[in-house]
Formats: sequence, C-alpha cells, structure tokens
Amino acid sequence: MSSNSLGRNFVVTCFGESHGRCVGVVIDGCPPGLELSDVDVQRELDKRRPAASSIFTPRREEDRIEFFSGVFKGRTTGAPLCMLVWNREVDSRPYEKIRWMPRPGHADYPARIHYKGFNDYRGGGRFSGRLTAAYVMAGAVAKRLLEGLGIDVLAHVVQISHIEMVEVPSVEEIRTLVYSNPMRCADGDVARLMENVVQDARDAGDSVGGVVEGRVLNVPPGVGQPIFDSLDADLAKALFTIPAVKGVEFGAGFKAASLTGSQNNDAYTMKDGQVVTLTNNSGGVLGGLSTGMPITFRVVFKPTPSISKPQQTVDVRALVDTDIEVKGRHDACIVPRAVPVVESMAAITVVDHLLAAGFL
Amino acid sequence: MSSNSLGRNFVVTCFGESHGRCVGVVIDGCPPGLELSDVDVQRELDKRRPAASSIFTPRREEDRIEFFSGVFKGRTTGAPLCMLVWNREVDSRPYEKIRWMPRPGHADYPARIHYKGFNDYRGGGRFSGRLTAAYVMAGAVAKRLLEGLGIDVLAHVVQISHIEMVEVPSVEEIRTLVYSNPMRCADGDVARLMENVVQDARDAGDSVGGVVEGRVLNVPPGVGQPIFDSLDADLAKALFTIPAVKGVEFGAGFKAASLTGSQNNDAYTMKDGQVVTLTNNSGGVLGGLSTGMPITFRVVFKPTPSISKPQQTVDVRALVDTDIEVKGRHDACIVPRAVPVVESMAAITVVDHLLAAGFL
Amino acid sequence: MSSNSLGRNFVVTCFGESHGRCVGVVIDGCPPGLELSDVDVQRELDKRRPAASSIFTPRREEDRIEFFSGVFKGRTTGAPLCMLVWNREVDSRPYEKIRWMPRPGHADYPARIHYKGFNDYRGGGRFSGRLTAAYVMAGAVAKRLLEGLGIDVLAHVVQISHIEMVEVPSVEEIRTLVYSNPMRCADGDVARLMENVVQDARDAGDSVGGVVEGRVLNVPPGVGQPIFDSLDADLAKALFTIPAVKGVEFGAGFKAASLTGSQNNDAYTMKDGQVVTLTNNSGGVLGGLSTGMPITFRVVFKPTPSISKPQQTVDVRALVDTDIEVKGRHDACIVPRAVPVVESMAAITVVDHLLAAGFL
Amino acid sequence: MSSNSLGRNFVVTCFGESHGRCVGVVIDGCPPGLELSDVDVQRELDKRRPAASSIFTPRREEDRIEFFSGVFKGRTTGAPLCMLVWNREVDSRPYEKIRWMPRPGHADYPARIHYKGFNDYRGGGRFSGRLTAAYVMAGAVAKRLLEGLGIDVLAHVVQISHIEMVEVPSVEEIRTLVYSNPMRCADGDVARLMENVVQDARDAGDSVGGVVEGRVLNVPPGVGQPIFDSLDADLAKALFTIPAVKGVEFGAGFKAASLTGSQNNDAYTMKDGQVVTLTNNSGGVLGGLSTGMPITFRVVFKPTPSISKPQQTVDVRALVDTDIEVKGRHDACIVPRAVPVVESMAAITVVDHLLAAGFL
Repeated sequence: MSSNSLGRNFVVTCFGESHGRCVGVVIDGCPPGLELSDVDVQRELDKRRPAASSIFTPRREEDRIEFFSGVFKGRTTGAPLCMLVWNREVDSRPYEKIRWMPRPGHADYPARIHYKGFNDYRGGGRFSGRLTAAYVMAGAVAKRLLEGLGIDVLAHVVQISHIEMVEVPSVEEIRTLVYSNPMRCADGDVARLMENVVQDARDAGDSVGGVVEGRVLNVPPGVGQPIFDSLDADLAKALFTIPAVKGVEFGAGFKAASLTGSQNNDAYTMKDGQVVTLTNNSGGVLGGLSTGMPITFRVVFKPTPSISKPQQTVDVRALVDTDIEVKGRHDACIVPRAVPVVESMAAITVVDHLLAAGFL
Repeated sequence: MSSNSLGRNFVVTCFGESHGRCVGVVIDGCPPGLELSDVDVQRELDKRRPAASSIFTPRREEDRIEFFSGVFKGRTTGAPLCMLVWNREVDSRPYEKIRWMPRPGHADYPARIHYKGFNDYRGGGRFSGRLTAAYVMAGAVAKRLLEGLGIDVLAHVVQISHIEMVEVPSVEEIRTLVYSNPMRCADGDVARLMENVVQDARDAGDSVGGVVEGRVLNVPPGVGQPIFDSLDADLAKALFTIPAVKGVEFGAGFKAASLTGSQNNDAYTMKDGQVVTLTNNSGGVLGGLSTGMPITFRVVFKPTPSISKPQQTVDVRALVDTDIEVKGRHDACIVPRAVPVVESMAAITVVDHLLAAGFL
Repeated sequence: MSSNSLGRNFVVTCFGESHGRCVGVVIDGCPPGLELSDVDVQRELDKRRPAASSIFTPRREEDRIEFFSGVFKGRTTGAPLCMLVWNREVDSRPYEKIRWMPRPGHADYPARIHYKGFNDYRGGGRFSGRLTAAYVMAGAVAKRLLEGLGIDVLAHVVQISHIEMVEVPSVEEIRTLVYSNPMRCADGDVARLMENVVQDARDAGDSVGGVVEGRVLNVPPGVGQPIFDSLDADLAKALFTIPAVKGVEFGAGFKAASLTGSQNNDAYTMKDGQVVTLTNNSGGVLGGLSTGMPITFRVVFKPTPSISKPQQTVDVRALVDTDIEVKGRHDACIVPRAVPVVESMAAITVVDHLLAAGFL
Repeated sequence: MSSNSLGRNFVVTCFGESHGRCVGVVIDGCPPGLELSDVDVQRELDKRRPAASSIFTPRREEDRIEFFSGVFKGRTTGAPLCMLVWNREVDSRPYEKIRWMPRPGHADYPARIHYKGFNDYRGGGRFSGRLTAAYVMAGAVAKRLLEGLGIDVLAHVVQISHIEMVEVPSVEEIRTLVYSNPMRCADGDVARLMENVVQDARDAGDSVGGVVEGRVLNVPPGVGQPIFDSLDADLAKALFTIPAVKGVEFGAGFKAASLTGSQNNDAYTMKDGQVVTLTNNSGGVLGGLSTGMPITFRVVFKPTPSISKPQQTVDVRALVDTDIEVKGRHDACIVPRAVPVVESMAAITVVDHLLAAGFL
C-alpha cells in the first residue's frame, strides 16, 4: 500500500528517513515556465531551521537544497521536480534501544507492527519530524506559484502551553513580526512569555505543545470541490499529515458549537463591487468551496513526545513492563518550527485546488 | 475535476441531489461473500431519520433503500454495490428565490461561481445534508464488514449549544442509550436540557450547533499508513466531508496544547498479554497508525445555517445588498441526525485502511 | 480492490450485471452547462443494439436510457451524472450449469477464483458484453463534449474473419456508410461478404472475430501526458477494457516493425499555416502527445467465445474433464456491435485528456 | 497535470531528463523485508546497456545505481525506495538546433506545444529512451518480489525488420540464449541475420524496428481486476509507456481475427490436479484476469526515429519548411535494448496486481 504521495494535480511524493542519506521530494504537476531557483526553496527551508535559542535542538542540519530534475534555464519545465537535502548531522547510537522499547507518544510501537519489524527505527525513521523538510521544499514551490496569483499564505503561533495570544493580530503584523522572534509569534511580548514556558519545560526534562493559526489570503471564490475533495477536507488532511497535529478547525471552529445560526452565519454585502461577508465565521469555506474571504484555520500540536524524564514502556521482546529514558537532541517545543510546515501544507493544498480550477 | 469518490480500496462514489430523483451511492471494492440485505442498510438509514420530536423538520422522506447491483443470493459478489433512496417529499417552490440571493452560511454563493450558474440550486442541490443518506448507506456496508472483525463504531452527542456532557459515558451507556432519546445523547437528563435549548432556538427562528464524539473500538495496532494517507488524516478528511463540520480533533485534541509531554504521552504497559497504554490522549493514533487503543475523536457542527430570521445578503444579479427570509422545512439543530453520519464516515475510513492492511 | 472507475478527470464508474436489475454508469467530472438530453444518449445506445439481421442475438433489450442525476433544465450541472438501462429480457436458466463448468474463452474460471465463488455467474455476470451499454452511455456524453470542440470520433469494421477491406475508406465514407449495413463496414460490398462469413459460422454453431479501425479527428497538438499517462497508453488501456479485445495498434502498428526509420518517420510540412505531417505512420501520437494529425488505431476482437458446438471443459467441483454445450442467445460475431463501444472508449479517453489540458 | 506515476499499489514515480543530472525513480508500496542490494538492480541495468556491437550508440553511460532511501540493513523497510543513476556522458551541443526544428518521429513538436516551449529539449529531455533506466530500476525490484513467488518474466526479440523467428523458442532457450547475443534473440542464427540487417540500416544512415515477445510464467489464476483495471489493460498501458511502442497484442493477438471461436477458445482439462488449458490463444488472460497459463504478449517497436539521413521538417519560429540532419549518438535499432524494459514493465504491472490480490 502506497501512501507517500499527496494531491491530485500538484502531486507531492516524499522519500527519505531521519538517519538515512537524505530527505527528498518529487513534485509532479508543477506547471512549466515558473521561475525557480534554489534561493526560493532555501529561504523556506531556513525558516524551518531552529532559531538561535537555547530552547531548540542542537542537531543543526545545514539543509542545503539541491535540485535533481525539472528545472532548465532557471524555469520549471513541467517535468517532475526532484529536490533533496542531505542528512549530515546524524548520531544514530541512542536509537538502538528504542528498537525494542517503544517511546511513549512516538510511532515506534505501531510502526514496528505495521512494518513487521523491518522499519528503519533510527531517529524515528520515516516518522521523524525531519521529514517535514520535504514538505517545506514542496511548499516553497507552491508558494512561488501562489505569488504569481497574489495569494499569500501566513501562519503564526497563537498558543504555547497555557500562554495564548488574546488580540488577533493583523495581516501586516503577522507578515513583519512572525520571523522576528524564535517563537514565530506576531506579538513580541507574548513571544517572550512563550519562550519562558518552553525554557521551563526544557529545564524540567519535559516539553510543551501549542496552536498555530493559518490564513490564506486572496483565494478567489468557488475554488475547491464539493462532497469528498472539498477544500477544507483536503486542507485538514494535509495539516493532519504534519507530525504531532491532533486537531484542525476552520473559522469559528469548536466555538461554533455554542453560537446560534444568526450569530454564526456570515451575512453577505457588496464592498467595492465585490461580494464579501461581514464576518468570517466560516473561515472562508462553505460547502467545501472558497467564499473569497480569507481561509482561516487553527492547528493544535501536542507537546513533543521526546522528553528526557523517565517514562514507563514495555519491552516488546520480553513483553514485560520497563522504563525508558530518551536521550537524543530534541526540541522541547516544536510548534515554532512547525509554522513554515503549516504554511507549506496549506500552500500545497491550495495550489492543487487552483490547478483543478484552471487558475494555474 | 471529479470529487465524488472517497477511498482507495473501499471506494464510495455518491450521486444525486436534494430535489432530483434520488440520492445514491456506488461502493467499489467491497469484498465478495459478505451477507448483506436491505434490512442491514435500512436500519442505519432509519437512525438518520428525524426522531419523533417537534424540533425536527417536517420533511419526512421514507428513505427505503433499494439495491441496484452487487448482491446475489444474499451476499456481495465483489462487483460494485449500487444503492439508492428516492426523493419523494420534495417541495422546490421556496428555492427559486435563492437562485439569485445566496443564503448566508450555505454554499449557494460559491457553488454558483464554481458551477458557472448551472448548479441545481433547489434545496441546496448537491450541497444538501440530504446527501448524507448516501454516506449512511455506504457506512452500513462498512459496519457489516467491521462486525465480522469485532470492530465497533460509536458516536454520540456531547454538546448542544452551551449544554455539555461533563461525565464521560461508558461504551455500554453509549450503546444502549444514544438512540433512546431524540438528541442521541448518552445521558437522558442532559438530553432533555439539550432538547430544550433546541426548542428555544426553533421558537426564536434560530438554530444551534454542537459536538459529536466518535469512538472506534478494537482496531488492531499498526493499521493506517504513514505520511500522507495516515489513519487520522483520512478520518479527518472523511469527517470534514459531512456538511456543517468545522473542526475535528483526536484524543486530547486542542487541550493537548496546554499539556506537558509527560502528561500527554501515553505510557505503555502489558495487560492480559497485550501491549496497551495507561491513558489514551493520542486518541488511538500515533504516526498515522492505530495503537490498538480506542480511536477517539470529536467533531464540531456549526448551527444549521437555515434559519427563518431575516438575514442580510446580496442580489447577485443586481449586485446590491438585500434581505432574505429562508422558508422551507429545516432542522433547528442537525447534530443528532449527524450521529449515524459520523459513524458512517468513520466506518468507511477504517474499512478502507483495513483492506489496505489485509484484514478484509 | 476497486477497478470499476476509469479516468482521472472525466471519471466513469460502471455498475450492474448481465442478469441483475440494470447496467448503469456514473460520470464524475463532466463540466457544467453541457446541453444533454436522453435523445443524445439513446442515439448512441441504439447503435449498439443488434442490427436487423439473422446473424445477431435474439436477446433484444430495449435499452431505454434513464437519467438519475446530474441534469437540470436540460443541461449538466457539474454534479455526477448517473444513467442506467434496465435489464428486462433476461433468461437465467441456461446459466446454472456454467457455475461449475467454465465455458472456454469466457471469464468463468478465473472469475470464480477471483471472487471466491461469490460472483454472479448468470450470463457472465460482471464480465458480460452487456456491460458495454455503460461504456456507450458514458461515451455519448463524451461525444457531446467533443462535438463542441469540432472533434469527431469514428470507428468501422475493417476485417471479419479472413475478409479484409483493402482500400482505406475516406472519412466521408465512414461517416455516411458505416451505420447503413449490419456489419458497420464502410464498403457495402465488403459488408455483404462479411455478413456471409458470419452467417456461415453461425450455421456451423461457431463464431468469428475481426478488426475495428478507429479515428479521432481534429485533436489539437500537444494533448496527452508524457511518460505514464500518455494519450496512446490511456487509449490502449481503455480499448483493452472492451471484452474480447486482444490487440491494439496505432498508425502503422505492427507493420512498423518492417519499415525503416526513413519510411516510418512522418515528415513535417506547413499547410494552410499549420504544421502537419506528410504521412501519419505515428497514428497521430508521438511521445504520448497528439501531433494534431488524426489519431488512428486498430483493435482486434477475438471470435465470440459463446459457440453452440460442444467443447471440452472441466467440472470444477469434481475436478474431472467434461464437455459443455453452451445454449443461450449469442452473437456469432460481436465485432459490428463493438463499433460504438470502440468510439465510446476513444471519446472518453480523449475527453479525459482534453480536460487535463484545459480544453474543456 | 501529473503523469509520472504508474500503479496503484506498487507505485513507480520517475524523474530526470536525458541531459539533466540524473534519471531516478521512487517506488512507493514495496513490501518491507525484501532482501535487496545494489547488485540486484545493477544486474538489470546492465542488461539495458548496449551490447558490445558496432550497431549500438557510442554513448556509454556507466549507469551505476545508487540507493537514496528505503533500504536498511540490506532489506526494504516499507518506506519509499529512491534509486537513481547519474548522467555523465552528456553532449548537449547537437541539440540546440532541434529547439526550433522538430525531428520527425520524435516528440519534439508536440512536447514544445504541450510545455509551452519550456521543456528541456536536450537529447529529447523527458521523452528520451534514457528514461527507461528508471523503468528498469523499478523492474529490478519487482522481479525480486516475483522471484519469491516463483514467477518468471521473460522477453526476447522475435522480429527485426523483415527477419522473423519462425519457430517458437522454449522457455529454456529464452532463459539461456537471449543475453548471449547482442540482438537478445533466442536463436543465434536468426540473431546474426538480424544483426546484419541492423548494420545495413546503420550504414545507410537509417534504422529498423522490430517485435519483442514477453512471457510471464506461473502467475496464479484469478489475478487481475475486472472491467477497467484488468490485467491485460494495465499491461498494455505499461507497455505503451515504453518509447517507440506502437502496438501490443496478447496470445493469438491480431491473428485471432481470422480464427473461429472453436479454434480460438482454449479448452480446459485437468493436468496434475490443476485446471489448465490445452492451447493458450488467450495469452493467459480472460476477462482481465489471469487463467494460470503463461501470460504471453507481443510488442512492436517502430524504427528508431533518429536517423542521419536528411529529413524534411519545419522551422517552428519562421513557420517554413526546412531540412534537418540529426547528428548525435543513436542506436540504429533499439529493440534489443528494449528487452529488459519490456520485462520490467511487465514485472511492475504483475507485482501491482499481485499486491492487490494479497499475494505479496
């Protein structure tokens, strides 16, 4: 059973493992003629690298993107784009033990069963967050395509542990501030509180989770497909493929449960000759189709399962209870590093739908 | 662009419109030899019919399932199963006006653009909740397949408007109580409070939303696919294809944001010779694969967009603001009727993955 | 495993059995706004009915098409089109015996194994030529779409048994003459010889095969996809899904083996401002893409496996050799009736590729 | 529109260009636990290299396979297998001119239109026969999987220009003799005649075509899918994706047109407790399913379009007629080098179907 490709028109296939030679991606369906250089992709990959802060992993892969196919004279040709980054900073020693002692919160145990024990377990293998480098390379190409249509994809951290942003930031604040602090938060003061919380967790050998908000601006109305390949269903699917995501909501989301219809319905009005809505509780999607308003969504990330505190697990050979202490180089909070990944999966999905709709 | 099929192995294709001749479904990939009668499907369809309560729509389709293909001598043959229900209780008169005046909260406006004005707008056409009759017919077949493996799919209402269940009901309570009250709630007392809230909204010409919890029991560990076709991503996608869904979360869901890793990680232990976890914050899915624990998720439904209060909209011909009052026969709360639909989409997705894993 | 859908953009899903209630088809991806009535589809279905000739089966299904969904006010809506014909003239009695004694040349034996004995064996069930009624209904819609682009799909019989057309007929001859004789041959004199051969085979309790040539005119250059979803590969696949097809060739086909490159290459020249080729040995396809010249292909049909002569087979219960005489109502030659089926599969495939190329 | 992936369960995605950095392939769906080394793949790649004969191209790529992912401790892990060969012996100078002057018989002209002029035209770019190195790498993995089931895939040249093998070789002759001569023909005497014909064409600045026969032995009965994803339709599609293929036939193929049903039907009999057929005119496929007999097919290759004789073409900028002489390093006959490619596409397709049938 295959499961490493996403999309129907802009098809992203990823390969590679955390401790193998590389992490790579093949994009099939990128239209010909797009100007594309390694700088475009590198810029996005760099966003995913841990910021200079003591709260992040000391594994610091350089992650230099290399094109293997699909670009000729500085433009895409319409042939598959293959891109990859090499794995260099690999230390596989701590992983021999997890072969038999699955780490709580990681995929070790079900992966072992699914692959009948043949999976590459080093660093989580195929289930490592490192795989998201492939998502980001593909997302970089998607963003280049969206640029040409004036469509913007933004994401930012709105919650870390119990620290929540209260005021909704403007698009301008997100654009200018998110990458100015290590927490990828559009409010510098809140970012400092968040950083403290992460540092505390790290000091305690523990970790914390959080929430990322995403927005896609300027998607024309009517994009998406009804019924099964709806825009929100496909966005949700794409976002759930990011490791550690446990929930996705659009617009008012779970809060819609306690609203009335008259509160939640977004009334239409004319503005500058365009049909717009006065509110955006729908998050820009109705019936699986874009309304023309910003597509807004929130994604929750669980706390990093890798913690250095001792944890209870089982020895899958002896079938007895045991304890495990997970060494290795981990982030006490991966939420900030997930921001460009969220942007990427949103961009990939929107491009896929725009291709279906004939916009690209 | 096609978008009316779901799944890779158990492929569900639906057709029909709210006010057309019928709503139907073709299932491709159902294994041969399954005992299947119209009684099996009718039982599920009946769960979707509005309960005898003043809070539900007076449109009362009989919804008698008819097999058109794929069953021979009381068993599936392996050929496509086509099933449908006829539309009988159709009154299309109130819908001529929405052709030009999109109803807030409905898909009317983006659908018009997507289909260049050719969509069947009567009763929402292809975007009507009535389409979920097709989901339930397919779900009924999926449930029959799961039965043979001892896998159970349950769903129940846990919140309507601001009324939330506080105590988590047991599997036994869900099984026995959910279909004993019109709210599909496992606690009769809470159900009565919910019903009152819906009645109040109805009296006010308004509507309310809510949350459905789902559980899939006894899925063996290792089922699902890593990366893009993961079990949770596919479940989320399937659940988001239900009209009015605005959010999906697994296990601890959005609450995981404020937990630490040591709180959220589910420790492993041996029990009766099986590897189990002491908690189930993961909702039974790690790395896109089942852990063997119950798969648990929550789905939020926005309040029914059809309300009788006047609402602001635009006239898409004249491009001016106007008001609309939506007549027609609507539910002030569709959440209870969504319960078998949630069960169905979960069952369909799990069957699709079990087929991939060789269990069926 | 599903296998009853064809296409990526214009997705044709068929259902039904030879002796079940009906044979039907769902088309997903038909663009909205196409004028479409039952007359358009009925005309094509009628071409598939046996001509008034003693050489054809006495099973004479009326095959009145019924729309079940997807058409509103005389136009397609963009929603799935479901169409079907009822089975009425069914006599299943002769088929009980083939349950255990597979007919040579039919799918009875491998079908029994594939479906573990649960397949509907009456009249060949899912493997009957009757299923091609679904192909023709879908083809009728595809042809309507092609009409709007000035693309014409033609097919005609060029060989029956050892009777071969020698002179290549003109497009005009094919258009006007093919449906004027029961053999669907563009030369009336040859048609009479063919009919005699079929009559002789019928009298001898035997059957004959033949070859159908197809042409698709006015496909613009560059349509198709390189590598795996090439236009010729997809046409070949679609044509091989017609029961009894054993070979497909494009342009010079198997004769190309004995040509030299300088003979076989089609030289380019300008004509009326267009790039054309002086010959068309490529059959209008190079590198999986259309050249702008007519797409030409030939399809061979084996002789109908249903013959009344006694044949050797095995009893699959007793696992001993035995003889079988196949009664039932069969065509001594199905090639003429395959002509609209060939046209349909070509039309469906070309529409699928035109949609991908943005022409529809 | 994507088109660089083939298969539903064993999904082969290829990337790379003739004169780019590399030619590569990603296989998604290979079961875990298969012992696989570069030796297994190299052996197949070496079969594709031109034999030591003056009739073949002087471009002699070393084609050393490199694994990029999916293998751990000498076994497949179930994760995607990425493999590639580097392009080293590239001389792109002769190709600047074909940018504007499409070579007859090549994809230059439709590719230019399809890709709006952005395609990499050097060496035919994405349309080069060099791409088949990717097919062979994937085929090598498929063959390793088939080995474990005792399934053998054979191919051999049966016709070059007007030189045809008359006697059907035995399986043993094919196995032992095919790779003993540069023509990949199971009869050494015929091979010499073939080689002479190719040498003559080469001397004349011309080229020749031919026919390859393929056989797949020991496929169990019932493998394949009815209707659209039938075994023969999928094999045909896969074979038509090989550059220069213009026709595919199974069993009696085009000869079946002039047989009667009683001649063509393969009678069943018991042999050693197995159901077998006395003849194999069906080529081992009935109703899209394997019969258990050898799957036999023939594939015609047109003469190499690259010839050094002057040819008429057009200048696509000036839109005037012109002449072209194609320099470069080409094979006067690619049929022998296509033998392992035919084997590979057959192996890939059969593995895809065996996975669907639960055999792998």
